[in-house]
Amino acid sequence: MTQNDFHGVFPYLVSPIDDRGRVMDHVLDRLCDDLIGKGVHGLTPLGSTGEFAYLDWAQKREIVATVVRATGRRVPVVAGVAATTIAEAQRQTEAFETLGADGILAVMEAYFPVGDEGTYAYFKAIAEATSLPVVLYTNPNFQRSDLSLPVLERLSEIENIRYLKDASSNTGRLLSIMNRVGGKIEVFSASAHIPTCVMMIGGVGWMAGPACLVPEQSVELYELCRAGQWDKAMELQRKLWGLNQAFARHNLAACIKGGLEMQGYEVGVPLPPQAPLSDEGRAEVRAALEAVGAL
Amino acid sequence: MTQNDFHGVFPYLVSPIDDRGRVMDHVLDRLCDDLIGKGVHGLTPLGSTGEFAYLDWAQKREIVATVVRATGRRVPVVAGVAATTIAEAQRQTEAFETLGADGILAVMEAYFPVGDEGTYAYFKAIAEATSLPVVLYTNPNFQRSDLSLPVLERLSEIENIRYLKDASSNTGRLLSIMNRVGGKIEVFSASAHIPTCVMMIGGVGWMAGPACLVPEQSVELYELCRAGQWDKAMELQRKLWGLNQAFARHNLAACIKGGLEMQGYEVGVPLPPQAPLSDEGRAEVRAALEAVGAL
Amino acid sequence: MTQNDFHGVFPYLVSPIDDRGRVMDHVLDRLCDDLIGKGVHGLTPLGSTGEFAYLDWAQKREIVATVVRATGRRVPVVAGVAATTIAEAQRQTEAFETLGADGILAVMEAYFPVGDEGTYAYFKAIAEATSLPVVLYTNPNFQRSDLSLPVLERLSEIENIRYLKDASSNTGRLLSIMNRVGGKIEVFSASAHIPTCVMMIGGVGWMAGPACLVPEQSVELYELCRAGQWDKAMELQRKLWGLNQAFARHNLAACIKGGLEMQGYEVGVPLPPQAPLSDEGRAEVRAALEAVGAL
Amino acid sequence: MTQNDFHGVFPYLVSPIDDRGRVMDHVLDRLCDDLIGKGVHGLTPLGSTGEFAYLDWAQKREIVATVVRATGRRVPVVAGVAATTIAEAQRQTEAFETLGADGILAVMEAYFPVGDEGTYAYFKAIAEATSLPVVLYTNPNFQRSDLSLPVLERLSEIENIRYLKDASSNTGRLLSIMNRVGGKIEVFSASAHIPTCVMMIGGVGWMAGPACLVPEQSVELYELCRAGQWDKAMELQRKLWGLNQAFARHNLAACIKGGLEMQGYEVGVPLPPQAPLSDEGRAEVRAALEAVGAL
Repeated sequence: MTQNDFHGVFPYLVSPIDDRGRVMDHVLDRLCDDLIGKGVHGLTPLGSTGEFAYLDWAQKREIVATVVRATGRRVPVVAGVAATTIAEAQRQTEAFETLGADGILAVMEAYFPVGDEGTYAYFKAIAEATSLPVVLYTNPNFQRSDLSLPVLERLSEIENIRYLKDASSNTGRLLSIMNRVGGKIEVFSASAHIPTCVMMIGGVGWMAGPACLVPEQSVELYELCRAGQWDKAMELQRKLWGLNQAFARHNLAACIKGGLEMQGYEVGVPLPPQAPLSDEGRAEVRAALEAVGAL
Repeated sequence: MTQNDFHGVFPYLVSPIDDRGRVMDHVLDRLCDDLIGKGVHGLTPLGSTGEFAYLDWAQKREIVATVVRATGRRVPVVAGVAATTIAEAQRQTEAFETLGADGILAVMEAYFPVGDEGTYAYFKAIAEATSLPVVLYTNPNFQRSDLSLPVLERLSEIENIRYLKDASSNTGRLLSIMNRVGGKIEVFSASAHIPTCVMMIGGVGWMAGPACLVPEQSVELYELCRAGQWDKAMELQRKLWGLNQAFARHNLAACIKGGLEMQGYEVGVPLPPQAPLSDEGRAEVRAALEAVGAL
Repeated sequence: MTQNDFHGVFPYLVSPIDDRGRVMDHVLDRLCDDLIGKGVHGLTPLGSTGEFAYLDWAQKREIVATVVRATGRRVPVVAGVAATTIAEAQRQTEAFETLGADGILAVMEAYFPVGDEGTYAYFKAIAEATSLPVVLYTNPNFQRSDLSLPVLERLSEIENIRYLKDASSNTGRLLSIMNRVGGKIEVFSASAHIPTCVMMIGGVGWMAGPACLVPEQSVELYELCRAGQWDKAMELQRKLWGLNQAFARHNLAACIKGGLEMQGYEVGVPLPPQAPLSDEGRAEVRAALEAVGAL
Repeated sequence: MTQNDFHGVFPYLVSPIDDRGRVMDHVLDRLCDDLIGKGVHGLTPLGSTGEFAYLDWAQKREIVATVVRATGRRVPVVAGVAATTIAEAQRQTEAFETLGADGILAVMEAYFPVGDEGTYAYFKAIAEATSLPVVLYTNPNFQRSDLSLPVLERLSEIENIRYLKDASSNTGRLLSIMNRVGGKIEVFSASAHIPTCVMMIGGVGWMAGPACLVPEQSVELYELCRAGQWDKAMELQRKLWGLNQAFARHNLAACIKGGLEMQGYEVGVPLPPQAPLSDEGRAEVRAALEAVGAL
């Protein structure tokens, strides 16, 4: 894979921050190195699992810099840009490209509703601020904006807007998108979809928090899908789904951080006032990890 | 297939009513006969496409009686029961069994929110009122109630509750359900899911309005899925999906009635104040039907 | 007040049904008589508190007939019409006029979303089916339709559409409505609004379940508002509000039926699968009634 | 009024930013001075109208500093703190106190849902970071969190949490709050409520964007309410409400900025990708201002 042809398993990295607000570089560094060693195809800092909405600019910069350094260009690094204004989004985009990122995951935050024109303008402005490939990110559960099909179609005409990561749970919508902009925009699954289904309908991989905890199994699943071994893929998928179920019920960052702690990565807890993983959530995540041999 | 082992393609039948409120038996009769001739595995009167929420009791009775008579036991007839009270739901269930239905599609309507206990009590009461297999129906988009996983698990212990038809668009939820009650409850897809995906994760078929318009293609898709020919299935699925997209954008009953009119079935329009299919919707449905050779 | 100039306190009557589904006429009769004796300005059978969504046609007919008979034309009876189709709404409207109702409370139910045209057509059709004054009812919390300001304005041009009962909790919207159609449509408050506020901005009364339990206090509050004694009104309002708070937290029908049982009216419980008032709800309602001397 | 006894009309100030991202101090300065000259009781920079969600830290600092300087301690300045993390909220709070603010308007932003404990911890932490009075702000329309009554009650026990500004449109909820924590927390209305109603039920004033455009009329309305002249108040309120209606239909910041431009304040447009006021919105705002003599 060249550095700008993205496909496969891209774990959504957590952001390990100590209680004085400092990025714990060494933990993040080790996590990146281990994930690459286990075969993941790329790394995505500052996604929703990475608590992009809870970090200040200095923390964001340091996280991207750390991941780029730890990766050493072995796999592409797709860094999350998230802002309410075009000016701030462009500033982040330019800074991450300078820091060495290989792609931009573009998230739009909003307080007041923004119409189709504003949504289009926002993502277009990010693409114009960089030469890197851009991954559009949409999560109708947590965001106040959504990408309509007509806006997606217009955005697909922009050359470096090349991927979409959809975190709705509506898999049919992905097929509608592929029918409409397939060839121009490739689709990544999120943890709310069944990755095997997304692969079967034409997806190119998934960007998701759970892959931090089960990288080898995720890569194995991806390879089965690529080989068209759908029945074997579903057998593995069925086991892995327990993990996604646990994540759907609890704060995503708390789940991944909690699971990584069980695996020996001292990544800490989500930034307050987010709560750490509850005892119930801890038991669920532990059971899900044990069921797939990841603990 | 015996009359109570349900699987395959069950078209959600429309309810043809003339402008004086009379059921147009002859049209319904011909539609049923044609669908069976084209290989569908069962028929479902009084689903959402069948405008169950818009019909009075006399109309409902006559529709079920007509479908049972037209079917002549060639395929199972699964009739939709929908009510806000347990008493009314049981009354409908008993009447449909007496009329010759082979299964009950159980829908819960609500005005005030009903908790888990009420939901459980409602569906349990339907199952107790009949010896027929019961298909649970849930549609979080249009209903005020939903079936939680714990309630589903309790309901799965009731012997004649054997199927679930899920009309959410959340395919991952179906996998969670299968992981939890698989073996006790079989899952049918709705038109909001990609049927091929639901089949791959373990579904047994689909109950959906669009199958009224593309019965042969639906049966072909089902056979490809059953044979594990997923790539061929997806090729066909991709073409058929245009139809589901059109249906997602317009009133479901208006779409199917509009499409059937194009195919020469004089089923009329949805009951007022529902609007007939708009010109825009008509063009979309026509294009979708032409694309798959169904017009 | 003539029989078709509506204003003041209109209790939303409960529907006492025994466990075999029979209307308990004698209880309803006594309740109506007592409420009129305590000064209420009208009676409203088959509102949401009256469980209109849970009754069959025979039950509805008998309830309206009972209330009309018990009232003996001492105050106006405004009967609730609720349907998904125009045909059924007109049938109910005509029947209630024949039974002796003095006004129609018009509710639109829906399964599929209905646009502005359908909403307008529905309410217009009810008005055309009767010579009685029509009260439009809107409850965005429990219904799938809402009355937009432009639709309201068009409906206000129809001569016998003369009142609106709004069950949103958005009091500002009422002022917008009054600014727009004031003089053509008079506004009644629901229990989700503070009646004193609605009176101050120009309302003509309230139609609400709690007035079944505190008729004298409701009438006293109304008289204080009419006299412009706002400070005294607020003093009483503040005490009465505890009751509305309790109702907002529990099933409305369960609350009123539970409270009436405490007051010695054997009205029974809401129709299953609705749950009876919980112990917690019972304690809240009891405390609220005791605080205003209604128990 | 001492600098920490807040009541009356607090305009939510806009944030005039030029197209290079610089705060236009001179315009803001003149606006503050004029508003104070017209009798407003306090000023609130960085509320929702002030686009707090769209500004970076340097812009926020400069806006608060400018308003404090322009005000010259003639009226209290209540500065908006808004963050997703406790750490960032405390940092803003301390900085605004150092800059000379007289109170803190506390807003909680969130990406993932935060439960009652997290909400309590967030607002408590702000109060502990300052000796200034704190105004809790809640806007269920645009925020992902809400203040439940039990959380509000716990927060009311903290000494310097003294006010609530509620931007729901549910006026009844305000009466519930007053009944529960009255005496410990005073309530300010937002533009989604009818200020006269909020005053009548016990409010102490309003914090709202429209007061930037109609300061004299707002102060007059406040004085009428204070004097208990409810009928005269309603007469004025009825005219002013047209303005609130216009604001409810369009982006709030766009409305106020658009209206101020008409009045000769060159405050510019909302930060992109927010859209400027549309032609339709412009006509509505102009009409509303002309109707009350504010243009």
